Amino acid sequence: MARPFVVDIHTHVYPPSYMAMLRDRKTVPYIHDPSDKGTPRLIILSSDDDPAIPIDQRGRPVDSSYSDINVKLDFMKKHDIDCSVISLANPWLDFLSPDEAQTWARLINDDLNATCANVNSAADPDNTIPLQQKRSLFAFGALPLSAPTPDIIVEEIHRLSSLPHIRGVIMGTSGLGSGLDDGNLDPVWAALEESQQVLFLHPHYGLPDEAFGGPEITARYGHVLPLALGFPLETTISVTRMLLSRVFDRFPRLRILLAHSGGTLPFLAGRIESCIAHERKFKENGGDVPGPQRSVWDVLKTNIYLDAVVYGKAGLQAAIAAGSTDRLLFGTDHPFFPPLGDENEKWLSVTINYAAIDDTLKEDPASVAAVLGGNAVRILDLK
Amino acid sequence: MARPFVVDIHTHVYPPSYMAMLRDRKTVPYIHDPSDKGTPRLIILSSDDDPAIPIDQRGRPVDSSYSDINVKLDFMKKHDIDCSVISLANPWLDFLSPDEAQTWARLINDDLNATCANVNSAADPDNTIPLQQKRSLFAFGALPLSAPTPDIIVEEIHRLSSLPHIRGVIMGTSGLGSGLDDGNLDPVWAALEESQQVLFLHPHYGLPDEAFGGPEITARYGHVLPLALGFPLETTISVTRMLLSRVFDRFPRLRILLAHSGGTLPFLAGRIESCIAHERKFKENGGDVPGPQRSVWDVLKTNIYLDAVVYGKAGLQAAIAAGSTDRLLFGTDHPFFPPLGDENEKWLSVTINYAAIDDTLKEDPASVAAVLGGNAVRILDLK
Repeated sequence: MARPFVVDIHTHVYPPSYMAMLRDRKTVPYIHDPSDKGTPRLIILSSDDDPAIPIDQRGRPVDSSYSDINVKLDFMKKHDIDCSVISLANPWLDFLSPDEAQTWARLINDDLNATCANVNSAADPDNTIPLQQKRSLFAFGALPLSAPTPDIIVEEIHRLSSLPHIRGVIMGTSGLGSGLDDGNLDPVWAALEESQQVLFLHPHYGLPDEAFGGPEITARYGHVLPLALGFPLETTISVTRMLLSRVFDRFPRLRILLAHSGGTLPFLAGRIESCIAHERKFKENGGDVPGPQRSVWDVLKTNIYLDAVVYGKAGLQAAIAAGSTDRLLFGTDHPFFPPLGDENEKWLSVTINYAAIDDTLKEDPASVAAVLGGNAVRILDLK
Repeated sequence: MARPFVVDIHTHVYPPSYMAMLRDRKTVPYIHDPSDKGTPRLIILSSDDDPAIPIDQRGRPVDSSYSDINVKLDFMKKHDIDCSVISLANPWLDFLSPDEAQTWARLINDDLNATCANVNSAADPDNTIPLQQKRSLFAFGALPLSAPTPDIIVEEIHRLSSLPHIRGVIMGTSGLGSGLDDGNLDPVWAALEESQQVLFLHPHYGLPDEAFGGPEITARYGHVLPLALGFPLETTISVTRMLLSRVFDRFPRLRILLAHSGGTLPFLAGRIESCIAHERKFKENGGDVPGPQRSVWDVLKTNIYLDAVVYGKAGLQAAIAAGSTDRLLFGTDHPFFPPLGDENEKWLSVTINYAAIDDTLKEDPASVAAVLGGNAVRILDLK
């Protein structure tokens, strides 16, 4: 049997223009580049920007895997990935001053589109080879969320629809700065709904250190608590706030892809639904505030897609039960979680997720193929 | 076919002595009792103690369902529950001053044991009826965690082993005040391991309001964000801190029952394991701190039991995949999440969990019976 066609929908790049911008910055996020005295370091989390840590040990080493598209292509070959839908990594453009947001968003989105175009035309100069028989790239664009007015964001969403390799947008959880239940985002939701661009919702801010017992305890275990627990909760909180503020009632055709299999949404969906049903504050229960009209389950089956970046059968089973096998999409999170040992080996962070999909769906090869690539082709209209 | 024997292992009581203590307090947790001018209110969460809210609307109404064991027995009859393992509700004794911790712990644990003894002897005066044919009570004890020295906690653990109806202890996530990765807890873990008492680990403190976007946003949606998301994450963080600090390496025979199906542990176990494997700080990866030797999966299959209080098939499937059907135990969370409508109807918060168990395990009646009661009988040695 032929190997299934594999699409990686969770794979990040820092285009060269974005790297240059980060090198010029001195506050998070920034790149510390000691030139010929060692590997540059990327400091993207506030918790990593600890003055007690020497600057050449803060954050993480940032090598060509972050920005060189040939490294991405080598990674794809090594892991049998045929097609990647690349996206800017967190924190995207959240930190830009209002006056520069639009310029940078256009520049970076054009860069991403051009990167895809260059790679795709090199692999298939006459555009005659079927998608399934070549290595190809598509991209999620980034939004100028700090722009002075939402009009600029809306304008960029519509402009992205005209870029041939863009298949949606990636966004964090801060929205315009007040979270995703901010009513001022309604024009953005409307534009996404109208254009039917997929919104890839991805964490960056995590949880406050106090959630883990304070900065000293957070730091004690390296990145484990913020990345393993803070990131997934951030995603879950943000999408729950969208639900509670009735975004999905107002914009029932939104299409959202949640990173890391929804954070913890599939597991907690039942508890969220029960807590809503038992909340006296909501009008249907005698309170004075309208509650969400649509259930979490309905939203999970209608508006939400989940990536399969959950590193095990337990999480995948919940993701499938809450959503379905035809709403689940393979991803890698490259270039994050590289192997700590032999750099030539296959990445553990990738092989775990491949194995989890096989283990969970081994009785159902059609679903394996759907999760690995078929769903992405259909949902993102890859061609 | 006979109805399965049903044990509720997640059901809280405030014994009368505990209620009296809360009535005497003016800081969280406390009971505001307006005497004949309305229902007393229980304020157990700091977020509920908002001076902007009139005192007779803060927290939640606290009626006889919290303290009257006859109300518990009526609830059990209505929901076909044969046996309940009652436990003090959060925040247990965490807030007591050091000098009064031991006295209150003994008093309350003796109260709990006596309550069980009274109910059980009334139902079966000669102690001749098999467990499966009568309504009965057992209890988890509470620990004097604020006592001046851990010796007092250890002493109470061993004393609890002599109380015939006590089957373990319930505990929050703060430990001695610094969380469950505090090395000073080692004598407590050792005593629990030696006595093989089950530790029922239950959330109370949730997450800081900032995790949800600040107090104004947290309050906007009533209790939904703190209870639906904060509670489960608190549990997950605490048990992950235990794992990272190598508690399960040092005390491999600990037996821990996690509330709300582990918070989110089954879903996030894979991500936790992957983050540990990719953490440079841990010695096996070239760092200078010893990492946990045992995997999350091993701990889930060996040390951890999960209740089935997760309100849906998606969560239950993850709980079963991460643990197993013979480590999953039915519970209700009574008296929390009462119906907001007709008080005579069956509680939605209970029927959802019954239905989820049936839905998940419908092909396997033996597993349904195990989850509903058989596992609890075996694991807690009910007889």
